[in-house]
Amino acid sequence: MKHDVNYTMLADFYELTMGNGYFQTGLKDRICYFDVFFRNVPDGGGFAIAAGLEQVIAYIETLRFDPEDVDFLRTKGLFSEEFLQFLLDFRFTGDIWAVPEGTPIFPREPILTVRAPAIQAQFIETYLLLALNHQSLIATKSNRIVRAAEGRSVSEFGSRRAQGADGALLGARASYIAGCSGTACAMADQMFHTPATGTMAHSWVQMFPDEYTAFKTYCQVYPNSPTLLVDTYSVLHSGVPNVIRVFRELGISKGAIRIDSGDLAYLSRKARKLLDDAGLTGVKIIASNSLDEYLIRDLITQGARIDGFGVGERLITSKSEPVFGGVYKLAAIEDGDGQIIPKIKISENPAKVTIPHFKKVYRLFENATGKAMADYVCLFEEQPDFTQPLELFDPEATWKRKTVSDFTAVPLLVPIFQKGRLVYQKPSIDDIRAYCVRQVDTLWDEVKRFENPHNYYVDLSQKLWDVRAQLLAPRR
Amino acid sequence: MKHDVNYTMLADFYELTMGNGYFQTGLKDRICYFDVFFRNVPDGGGFAIAAGLEQVIAYIETLRFDPEDVDFLRTKGLFSEEFLQFLLDFRFTGDIWAVPEGTPIFPREPILTVRAPAIQAQFIETYLLLALNHQSLIATKSNRIVRAAEGRSVSEFGSRRAQGADGALLGARASYIAGCSGTACAMADQMFHTPATGTMAHSWVQMFPDEYTAFKTYCQVYPNSPTLLVDTYSVLHSGVPNVIRVFRELGISKGAIRIDSGDLAYLSRKARKLLDDAGLTGVKIIASNSLDEYLIRDLITQGARIDGFGVGERLITSKSEPVFGGVYKLAAIEDGDGQIIPKIKISENPAKVTIPHFKKVYRLFENATGKAMADYVCLFEEQPDFTQPLELFDPEATWKRKTVSDFTAVPLLVPIFQKGRLVYQKPSIDDIRAYCVRQVDTLWDEVKRFENPHNYYVDLSQKLWDVRAQLLAPRR
Repeated sequence: MKHDVNYTMLADFYELTMGNGYFQTGLKDRICYFDVFFRNVPDGGGFAIAAGLEQVIAYIETLRFDPEDVDFLRTKGLFSEEFLQFLLDFRFTGDIWAVPEGTPIFPREPILTVRAPAIQAQFIETYLLLALNHQSLIATKSNRIVRAAEGRSVSEFGSRRAQGADGALLGARASYIAGCSGTACAMADQMFHTPATGTMAHSWVQMFPDEYTAFKTYCQVYPNSPTLLVDTYSVLHSGVPNVIRVFRELGISKGAIRIDSGDLAYLSRKARKLLDDAGLTGVKIIASNSLDEYLIRDLITQGARIDGFGVGERLITSKSEPVFGGVYKLAAIEDGDGQIIPKIKISENPAKVTIPHFKKVYRLFENATGKAMADYVCLFEEQPDFTQPLELFDPEATWKRKTVSDFTAVPLLVPIFQKGRLVYQKPSIDDIRAYCVRQVDTLWDEVKRFENPHNYYVDLSQKLWDVRAQLLAPRR
Repeated sequence: MKHDVNYTMLADFYELTMGNGYFQTGLKDRICYFDVFFRNVPDGGGFAIAAGLEQVIAYIETLRFDPEDVDFLRTKGLFSEEFLQFLLDFRFTGDIWAVPEGTPIFPREPILTVRAPAIQAQFIETYLLLALNHQSLIATKSNRIVRAAEGRSVSEFGSRRAQGADGALLGARASYIAGCSGTACAMADQMFHTPATGTMAHSWVQMFPDEYTAFKTYCQVYPNSPTLLVDTYSVLHSGVPNVIRVFRELGISKGAIRIDSGDLAYLSRKARKLLDDAGLTGVKIIASNSLDEYLIRDLITQGARIDGFGVGERLITSKSEPVFGGVYKLAAIEDGDGQIIPKIKISENPAKVTIPHFKKVYRLFENATGKAMADYVCLFEEQPDFTQPLELFDPEATWKRKTVSDFTAVPLLVPIFQKGRLVYQKPSIDDIRAYCVRQVDTLWDEVKRFENPHNYYVDLSQKLWDVRAQLLAPRR
């Protein structure tokens, strides 16, 4: 396996033209603050799952232009030679804060903040968004599917329908973080330790004179808990009877069948009965075929006897909503004296107005239940006194107020880079996965339901709200 | 730019378990024929565009397991040591035929055929499908968008919303093949020569005390046909007036404005009038903001004055239908004497029954018009006499018959690998792009329309139909 890539050049061209512009006009070292946030949860859900930070870290750590890149850019005839020379020594020297992977996240709050000289902060926009958008999309979708399966295993099977190799590999990674038990993709396992499994395709069955021979041959090679694909000819008239015959002849009592087509609710119930009647109660039933959270929930409601699901294209592309709309917006700049000047992007649409200034976010957990009550966004310099009751208010409908007390406030974003140096201890993928389960458990069921979930509170401190209100006052 | 990857391990795990099974049971060198085909055109369109072959070729040429791969597989405790050793020398030694990139393709016909020993033919399934599915998806979507734009330029802007880095890079490649004029992605240009362009984000405008200064500074750095983003504050009250002022002051008469939000039809008409009234008739208008073929068609119908479109997330993920359902199905095996035994995959759903046997496909072009009339699928060994009138019939509704004459039959699939050696002269991306335009031009308008397109004929020869009918006769 070779996977030696450098994505420095995976930038939108305008990041380079702007960079050259900042360079030539003396703005290149002007300190800027950018926030990554998103506006809508895919599929109308109540929360998303953050993922992709590990790839952001790898990108930042390897950010450098090589001479070929600079030669390529020179051919464009747009960039000053001084700027091109500057790129050869270009490194990221700023600060980054981010929410850890596996964290439930909500619209409008920063999930990553960059503080860096203008050229650097602007330049990393595209790759940061790409990495966070893609994996947060797949993690969010996967977590929905895993929750729909109510404790049954969900395996990621979608490589062949993924949007490119990274779609397959990092999609498998994101799905594992969000609760899938494994993947079909061997390389994802090798790269990310997401356990890969798999047994046979229909072509295995077709290679032999008959299904019985195909199954028997397979079980002779893999006698230890084999999974046999039973729908090449007919699940109930051929597949399951042949499994029973082969398992009996070889004395196999543990294993599984996989049904990949047809009426999964009906076939699984009938197959369960055939297996049970033959004494094969230890043989499990796996189902696959264009599944997603809605179909899985329907199957369970119908009393399907399915122990695990293989989920392909609808997970690996988040088919029902294949875009995670994370954006990267300027929140502030520093003047020559290091004073922070908050910046806002105004829009006709109130929901698209950004939250200005350099900020931090706390998640407030109710002490009695451990449940997350609200996220509280304030100025970075603020030191809220969380030992006192805290009045929260809706930033749009400010008359909606609520006072909370007896809670624990946990900072949501943690330092990742400081002055260009990685200061974050990267967790293992299994730690991220366990953390994700724990964090999703802190959400109320009302936030987790698929239909009309409760709007989790993301509120601003009074000071931050005031800054925003001032910037929204009549245009200077 | 470093992009040194080897995707040998990007396989579904079952390809390895089956491979070990074939190895241990003496079937590993059994010659198999697999076809790649798809069943439905995305978005209800009349045809798709084939893309991804160049990546398939690169994959096949570099297919090899390194010792680390084998060590990783050994840890699974599933594979025989002989098989693991065999993998170290594993190469592709078979034959591949495929349709060239940029070719319009239709459901059910083979677009790639593999003839190879069982282990090899089975092993390459996942990557082949991934590469062809992804790029064919994006090429098909992009071609729809380009056709909707009716000659106006369409630029690919979607990297930040792509499903992984390959989604961005290869998506830019596929969109260029299908007619986009370029991309925002610098690395795609560097890797694939898809021209990258880009000028400024809203943050550029926000970095300056006011919009006028931002525009003027930009034009001083880039006086040669600058594109200015005019919707940071207000397109008509601030953006366009500031462009006019700056262009006049600097004597710029060629350039463009970009509108990225709001009512694009209304704003573009008003902006056009402001520009024209100022004598800036040479300044173009570019529009972006969640566009796709439907919105572009609507804008044109509404009389929008837009000269070019930037298209992002809805193109780079094919948002309305983000999966291209190409499959890889066993079509035949050879017995010990080299005799071909056709194989079929039967399904309850007639449309899902495969076309068996080793086949070739001809596209029949009417001599009088140059238009494609039908695709004709026959046994590979057949030598149809195309100088005689040819009777075509619908393979499902066989009473629907039509005799055609005075046409030219062109083989659709061409040899790519023979005995493991590349025999195909890879075209340049600009040649592929020009070929795509020419080939789409051979389709009747009825096949190209978005709503209820005509079903292009994909018919079987009588001999092939007979083979299929025999295999569909009562189960042996």
